[in-house]
Amino acid sequence: MGHEIDLKNYEVHTDLAIELVESGKENIKYEDIKVTDIILDSDNAQKINKKAGRYITIEFEDITDYENKEKVKKVLNKELQKLIKPVSLNDNSLVLIVGLGNRKSTPDSLGPLVIDKVLVTNHLAFYNQLEAGFKKVAAFVPGVMGETGIETSDMLYNLVNFLKPDLVITIDALAASSIERLNKTIQMTDAGINPGSGVGNKRKEISKDTLKVPVIAIGVPTVVDASSIVSDTINYMYKHFAYSKENYDNPASKLQIGVNYLDKSINIAEADKKNLFGIVGSLSETDIKHLVFEVLNPIGYNLMVTPKEEDFVIEKLASLISDSLNQSLHTKVKHTID
Amino acid sequence: MGHEIDLKNYEVHTDLAIELVESGKENIKYEDIKVTDIILDSDNAQKINKKAGRYITIEFEDITDYENKEKVKKVLNKELQKLIKPVSLNDNSLVLIVGLGNRKSTPDSLGPLVIDKVLVTNHLAFYNQLEAGFKKVAAFVPGVMGETGIETSDMLYNLVNFLKPDLVITIDALAASSIERLNKTIQMTDAGINPGSGVGNKRKEISKDTLKVPVIAIGVPTVVDASSIVSDTINYMYKHFAYSKENYDNPASKLQIGVNYLDKSINIAEADKKNLFGIVGSLSETDIKHLVFEVLNPIGYNLMVTPKEEDFVIEKLASLISDSLNQSLHTKVKHTID
Amino acid sequence: MGHEIDLKNYEVHTDLAIELVESGKENIKYEDIKVTDIILDSDNAQKINKKAGRYITIEFEDITDYENKEKVKKVLNKELQKLIKPVSLNDNSLVLIVGLGNRKSTPDSLGPLVIDKVLVTNHLAFYNQLEAGFKKVAAFVPGVMGETGIETSDMLYNLVNFLKPDLVITIDALAASSIERLNKTIQMTDAGINPGSGVGNKRKEISKDTLKVPVIAIGVPTVVDASSIVSDTINYMYKHFAYSKENYDNPASKLQIGVNYLDKSINIAEADKKNLFGIVGSLSETDIKHLVFEVLNPIGYNLMVTPKEEDFVIEKLASLISDSLNQSLHTKVKHTID
Amino acid sequence: MGHEIDLKNYEVHTDLAIELVESGKENIKYEDIKVTDIILDSDNAQKINKKAGRYITIEFEDITDYENKEKVKKVLNKELQKLIKPVSLNDNSLVLIVGLGNRKSTPDSLGPLVIDKVLVTNHLAFYNQLEAGFKKVAAFVPGVMGETGIETSDMLYNLVNFLKPDLVITIDALAASSIERLNKTIQMTDAGINPGSGVGNKRKEISKDTLKVPVIAIGVPTVVDASSIVSDTINYMYKHFAYSKENYDNPASKLQIGVNYLDKSINIAEADKKNLFGIVGSLSETDIKHLVFEVLNPIGYNLMVTPKEEDFVIEKLASLISDSLNQSLHTKVKHTID
Repeated sequence: MGHEIDLKNYEVHTDLAIELVESGKENIKYEDIKVTDIILDSDNAQKINKKAGRYITIEFEDITDYENKEKVKKVLNKELQKLIKPVSLNDNSLVLIVGLGNRKSTPDSLGPLVIDKVLVTNHLAFYNQLEAGFKKVAAFVPGVMGETGIETSDMLYNLVNFLKPDLVITIDALAASSIERLNKTIQMTDAGINPGSGVGNKRKEISKDTLKVPVIAIGVPTVVDASSIVSDTINYMYKHFAYSKENYDNPASKLQIGVNYLDKSINIAEADKKNLFGIVGSLSETDIKHLVFEVLNPIGYNLMVTPKEEDFVIEKLASLISDSLNQSLHTKVKHTID
Repeated sequence: MGHEIDLKNYEVHTDLAIELVESGKENIKYEDIKVTDIILDSDNAQKINKKAGRYITIEFEDITDYENKEKVKKVLNKELQKLIKPVSLNDNSLVLIVGLGNRKSTPDSLGPLVIDKVLVTNHLAFYNQLEAGFKKVAAFVPGVMGETGIETSDMLYNLVNFLKPDLVITIDALAASSIERLNKTIQMTDAGINPGSGVGNKRKEISKDTLKVPVIAIGVPTVVDASSIVSDTINYMYKHFAYSKENYDNPASKLQIGVNYLDKSINIAEADKKNLFGIVGSLSETDIKHLVFEVLNPIGYNLMVTPKEEDFVIEKLASLISDSLNQSLHTKVKHTID
Repeated sequence: MGHEIDLKNYEVHTDLAIELVESGKENIKYEDIKVTDIILDSDNAQKINKKAGRYITIEFEDITDYENKEKVKKVLNKELQKLIKPVSLNDNSLVLIVGLGNRKSTPDSLGPLVIDKVLVTNHLAFYNQLEAGFKKVAAFVPGVMGETGIETSDMLYNLVNFLKPDLVITIDALAASSIERLNKTIQMTDAGINPGSGVGNKRKEISKDTLKVPVIAIGVPTVVDASSIVSDTINYMYKHFAYSKENYDNPASKLQIGVNYLDKSINIAEADKKNLFGIVGSLSETDIKHLVFEVLNPIGYNLMVTPKEEDFVIEKLASLISDSLNQSLHTKVKHTID
Repeated sequence: MGHEIDLKNYEVHTDLAIELVESGKENIKYEDIKVTDIILDSDNAQKINKKAGRYITIEFEDITDYENKEKVKKVLNKELQKLIKPVSLNDNSLVLIVGLGNRKSTPDSLGPLVIDKVLVTNHLAFYNQLEAGFKKVAAFVPGVMGETGIETSDMLYNLVNFLKPDLVITIDALAASSIERLNKTIQMTDAGINPGSGVGNKRKEISKDTLKVPVIAIGVPTVVDASSIVSDTINYMYKHFAYSKENYDNPASKLQIGVNYLDKSINIAEADKKNLFGIVGSLSETDIKHLVFEVLNPIGYNLMVTPKEEDFVIEKLASLISDSLNQSLHTKVKHTID
């Protein structure tokens, strides 16, 4: 055809290391909850434009169900300890929990919502009213630059410099590059965070390097962009096609209305890809994503979107994470703080 | 290839008549605001699974800008009169405004948000305290079935039967079948509404037929499904390809970073479609949408999504519509009720 | 002095029968939680301008403490059964829970807040999806007349007439006539309710008489008027004076900073009342209240007020009541629905 | 009687200088809006436990009425200039607006609510996108110590030290010592503020002395304590009695139902005070307040309260103040930002 597709200045929109790393992952399964533990050294980190450090990713199904949420909480508590333990907190340690994001934008409100339910105790310590079994915890919601006119990292740097906490824990809503992970993944890392980096408006880094104290960043993807939806869909179409083709003459398959073809690991042949999708079918997944981005971006339709039900889901996520923080930091806390 | 694609039980997800009707539309332009006036007779209505009636659709750009919002409000006031006038309200008429949808779900909260700002006067009339220049207005937020356990249409039927208003105006968030219309379209119709029909869980109709009083339904699309995003994107890829091809040897085009190729009406050749997109490229737009739906639906990823900024946009939309209702119903109201 | 104080058109502002009834009360104590069970026959009911029926009043201390809230919940569950049992619900019974009041006014939002956390199941029954252990429950938030322009009782009458529930349970914020009961009392009655009656703008009754189905009304006083604060204070001054006088020569009392003189049952002599408070000291408690009302009302300062912390307290109260309803109606519910 | 009333460790709960200063006030009237301009030198300031500086107090009636709110806004804009002008801001000046208080507690949410509507521009200046007619404005909501575990003044000191604004404007809800001023007074001062000082839990000062930049503190009283309600009422009873006595034989007065006796300046005789109120009637206003405080405080009933309608009123107050700030700081802003 002679017309070549050019894909230079594209950057995949994701805050999840797990979506970028391909090897060196360690997996653990707790029933249907999957944990991936990645240690990223500086070389590998640079390749995928992330900071070096440990990335623990928990993948789960629906947590709007009470029983399921309790199961995920147990795993979260266990995995969170892997990042807290190396910090060696003692009874006098101060932990600063920071709720990043915008309280007034549903998919960006995870951080502030967690802070609403976090047990704050630092002022009690100040008045010698802190019981045994409780650590010193302070909490902060810096707001977003569009509301404050101030860089979040600057605001945080000044506060940390004064408070001198032994650990900073940030909570933030993230961007995913796949619809499969939306609201169904928690990433925890000791590598810090670039607030807003996943949605393209990169802010200054918040990390041990910049704050001079250990930082644990906890995040959940709550938005995805239109190009990811399209490239995911093309991928599903391949799998659907492969599955249908193999089962075409199988009378049983006719009855399997709504079969989940994703569970079957049947791969499409390269020739079928090209047959089905022409030139587009000959591109790699990354190149397709680039191409779609190039097409949608200039006309303003590479929308960042969130599911219709986000208001409900994000409440559950915030309650899950705040419960876990309260139980992980204070040995005396056993029940949900409502 | 031998394997045929089967597309039967699909129904396009849209509440917008304008997306389904192809002829008989009357267009008016007020600067960059476009109004489409459609009279749908029973025959044509049945074909697209809508009720017969007049559908006035206003399309506009960004209303988060103050000046632009004021312009849209003027057009809205003017067009709304075309539906209110035939009802022949007088000074003693009672208008019932109904805010459909779910206050706690951002993209579904348009109706309740409008009710918050609507000027309610019916109880003043009851105590003879209603000044000249104000009509009798009552307002109602029925909630959604998942919260109340009661059919919205049943709740409304009983109330209307008792109140006997001269006109019912409903406000609801809708589903669009194109990302271009999200938050940028207001549909007004005297044909009534099926709440939730656009998102697949069809509820009982709210219309003059069922309530026995005139009904004006005002709606704004705030959600779109993943299949629409994919089919829209394929369409944009065609246009982008056609534009790029034509301008390939034109050195000027190399400089046009971020050019809006949608404005140029250059159509792609059928052969290029097939070349670019294989079998998929040979399908009609509707068939592509069906196919994507068939692929995404069984695995739970035909998500209904809303833009990341919906919290802010829906506030502006609610303020626009409530202002317009207050000014249209009460001759004495000139300013925004905050 | 010749100038007489005239106290005719005054009516004490309270929704609590316990504040009006003086004999025939049956008391039970669960640790520091006090339950008063009153059966009011028509004669006695008329005297205090209440409806005949059973009034169960639970008085407790601070429920912002987790342990304390759990204790109150147990008592509430037990006492609520005394009103639910006589209705003889079975597995097919439908219960309609109605959240009276105004969601947007903190001290009036108890009803809507309870509805937010109530488990609604009626629509599941409709689709045959209701598991054993769950009753059919529908929920409704009618709003207030100032927002809807419609009488709440009319709205409810029409809905009940259509739904035909076996029991209606209303939740409402009440007015107390004493600061001691603010947020620390739950009244439950089978006598129904006049929404807003405690705050002087009497609405039409909601009861078995008007709705033709059994009604249980649950209420918590969240506001009190200025005259009650003043008359309470004069009462406390009497007690404080009597206590101080008796302990004047007791050196030990000098050390008792902040002693709670209310616990001591020392009564002031009538002569001391007159000495301390002049003419006002010779009036009965009710007459003092009347007098203060006469003085404050014409100048607009008989304010209905609520404690500064009401936002937090009302959340806890709503969670207490919704938990109790969920556990009382559905045998399968054991934990808090968050 | 021999028993003396002891009134030592009492401190009147008010943040309003106007309630403490008795002379040296300059009054201006704009129709029914009253402005009092007080310059407090260090000597006089110390006497009433306030900081030296200029205190401008605006008293008005109901601002839930649109016309009235617009009138108050004009006066507010004019008076605010008297405090801004001496700071000598230029086009490059940076103003930091700080919303003190607790967003989740209605009567304490004024500061955060104002910030929601304040036009923030500092980040635009950073990217050279600030148009002429707009100043650089940053905004900050520090939260309260119970939520953050951090002293507000510390948080602010660190931020100011980094940002180096030319002016800090704080907005806070205050405590009044009279029900007449609740929600009907705006105090503006260049003397700074002690957040929470009016409600008894004194925090560290925020002022030019501590922050090293000019500070303008804007506050509105939204809470009052029970002792103030009682002492106000006794005062009204005196006035009511005096008025009634004088008009006892005047047949015309019998018809004056609901006459506003406050408007008439008829004073009660000292003998009548004692006759009416006994020993209490012989005490000064301050001593009565002390006495009531001594009686209510130990039993936990010196409640800080807010009017039942506070949710609505505080929204109007926030909109009034944010409009005024936007119009005072940016010459280009003419309309309400919604």
